Amino acid sequence: MTEQADNVTMSGGGLYSLATIGAKHVIDNTLPRVLSALDNCTQTGSASALTFSDMGCADGGTSLDLWRGVIEHLRNKKSYAGDIQIVYADQPNNDFSALAKITHGLTQFKTYLDEFDRVYILQSGASFYIPVLPACTLDLGFSATAMHWLRGKPVDITGHVHMVGATGDEQQAFEKQARRDWTEILLHRARELKPGGQLVLANFCRDDEGRYLGGTTGVNMFDTFNDIWQHFVDDKVITEKEYQSMTLPQYYNTVEEFCAPFQDANSAVSKAGLQMESIETAVVACPFAEDFKTHKDAKQFAEKYVPTIRSWNESTWFAALSTKRSLAERRDIIENYYETYQSRVEAQPTEHRMDYVHAYMTISRRAE
Amino acid sequence: MTEQADNVTMSGGGLYSLATIGAKHVIDNTLPRVLSALDNCTQTGSASALTFSDMGCADGGTSLDLWRGVIEHLRNKKSYAGDIQIVYADQPNNDFSALAKITHGLTQFKTYLDEFDRVYILQSGASFYIPVLPACTLDLGFSATAMHWLRGKPVDITGHVHMVGATGDEQQAFEKQARRDWTEILLHRARELKPGGQLVLANFCRDDEGRYLGGTTGVNMFDTFNDIWQHFVDDKVITEKEYQSMTLPQYYNTVEEFCAPFQDANSAVSKAGLQMESIETAVVACPFAEDFKTHKDAKQFAEKYVPTIRSWNESTWFAALSTKRSLAERRDIIENYYETYQSRVEAQPTEHRMDYVHAYMTISRRAE
Repeated sequence: MTEQADNVTMSGGGLYSLATIGAKHVIDNTLPRVLSALDNCTQTGSASALTFSDMGCADGGTSLDLWRGVIEHLRNKKSYAGDIQIVYADQPNNDFSALAKITHGLTQFKTYLDEFDRVYILQSGASFYIPVLPACTLDLGFSATAMHWLRGKPVDITGHVHMVGATGDEQQAFEKQARRDWTEILLHRARELKPGGQLVLANFCRDDEGRYLGGTTGVNMFDTFNDIWQHFVDDKVITEKEYQSMTLPQYYNTVEEFCAPFQDANSAVSKAGLQMESIETAVVACPFAEDFKTHKDAKQFAEKYVPTIRSWNESTWFAALSTKRSLAERRDIIENYYETYQSRVEAQPTEHRMDYVHAYMTISRRAE
Repeated sequence: MTEQADNVTMSGGGLYSLATIGAKHVIDNTLPRVLSALDNCTQTGSASALTFSDMGCADGGTSLDLWRGVIEHLRNKKSYAGDIQIVYADQPNNDFSALAKITHGLTQFKTYLDEFDRVYILQSGASFYIPVLPACTLDLGFSATAMHWLRGKPVDITGHVHMVGATGDEQQAFEKQARRDWTEILLHRARELKPGGQLVLANFCRDDEGRYLGGTTGVNMFDTFNDIWQHFVDDKVITEKEYQSMTLPQYYNTVEEFCAPFQDANSAVSKAGLQMESIETAVVACPFAEDFKTHKDAKQFAEKYVPTIRSWNESTWFAALSTKRSLAERRDIIENYYETYQSRVEAQPTEHRMDYVHAYMTISRRAE
């Protein structure tokens, strides 16, 4: 079930920021899977529009090439001339203004919208924990690198900041929450999919070799997160109480966990008509670490590597700091944290890397 | 065809800014018309979702009550329990982040989304000059105070800044552009409406008494715009060339002009199956001027009145200023302009008012 994706090489064009190139390559990797799913679901003879969703889309820049590939396939290979609707969904506090500008070609990103007729872009402020679309209206749902975010953390983890470092009851609490959340995500999709519709998901996972994001070779990324904060406690920069609430609301399912609801014929997911068509895991090499092999500049690597991590975990750390501290003080602690992190990367550049470990899966709703 | 709407009184709650209360009351006035149109188009027995659009929605705050009223009507009066989709559409550089926050209840505005199940909010970055939705998917399209914006100005108007002050060839160029644009708006809607679907539009107009926005009683608002800029030319604050390019890309149709494409059975609009069901004009009194009658504070009136005008015309004036001037200089000229305006209002408060003059119309696509 495991395959090693080609190492990511950096594009010279500079159109995509270094911070998103890894996520973009994960999405690009899904294209053959999406096209294959599409061939199994598209009602190309039908008069009604084909409807796709891109759940957890953020600003939409990383998936433009995927959707271009999908539309090209439909127009050129499948001779589908009908209407195509792409619904970009994310939480209501997502940057929808940036999303509209990017998908409509008002930025440096190249959109597909000008290249094809009868393509309609819509935005939805619905997270994947609620319905995005009306019943039986979705042909193909897509999501990449988003569904590891739980609805919330069930418990604060003692002595660590992420479920990969949780044990005992705490680990079980996360496991239970993740099971419920995964079921909920699937049931909402089962309702909105047309019969015969498909889901293609690229979700962070723990693979059969126990690998996960930032936990492949070298020092463990989440242990580094944790270790720096523990040192901050020791040095009385933050309190023990603040440290304890630093728990990321994430879960990385194993392939078994992703498959579990489908293997029980009596589960709500099976009864809703969903079936797992295929699942495989793959590792996309950390683009920053790969780039370092060429430029060999430890400082440059550290300066580019740490901001991409910061983009997704800063808000959790910041929220854990006591509001009794002034805003300036909290900001100083956060700056101090990432500076410390950067020093560690610079001192041992070959030890740090955030390889992307994903489960790529296709799920279908049975045709009626 | 003309009726005088009740004078608008200011709400004490302060939830809606003074700047939008007038536009909101225009929308609130459309509710009976929208419900009536809805009763003629809804396939309440059908399994598929009802789909509505709100074209030129801006941040969505002013139409929340309208859509609440529509959903209440469907759920309570029509016993419709099915899915309802509301598509908010505006240009791609609209503030879609604010729209998502407002419609999802993350601001002070009260959303309807929490009150009803099976309601789906979508956003579209399509202007009404392009298709918003796939063919035959729209049940009811709505737009208020938006379709007076032309795709562009056909010509710069000599000696004035708005088509209400244009004459001769220039007036005809605007008339022609407006005729083409109105046809284009309608043809896109004809395609996306389901057979039997409806449009309810509240568009700025020139009514049978020759009244229009800011051109009812007192001094003419557009003449004031123009007069101040002409003084700025005389005083060498701006150049004649800059003044000449200060032309607002707007057109206020008469009822006859709105109706024209429907009265010719061979027009593209008629052939597309659209028919004008009803049209009437109404005036919503300027909320600022009405408020002044109570508080009688000329300074307060001027300070609240001018910003609402500024919100929709500043960008046109600014774009007309030469880029040879520094940004700071251009900003100073604009500040100077609105300060001058404010002084005029303060000096003659009873002479200034921006009454809203709209044509309210219902258009249907013939059932097949």
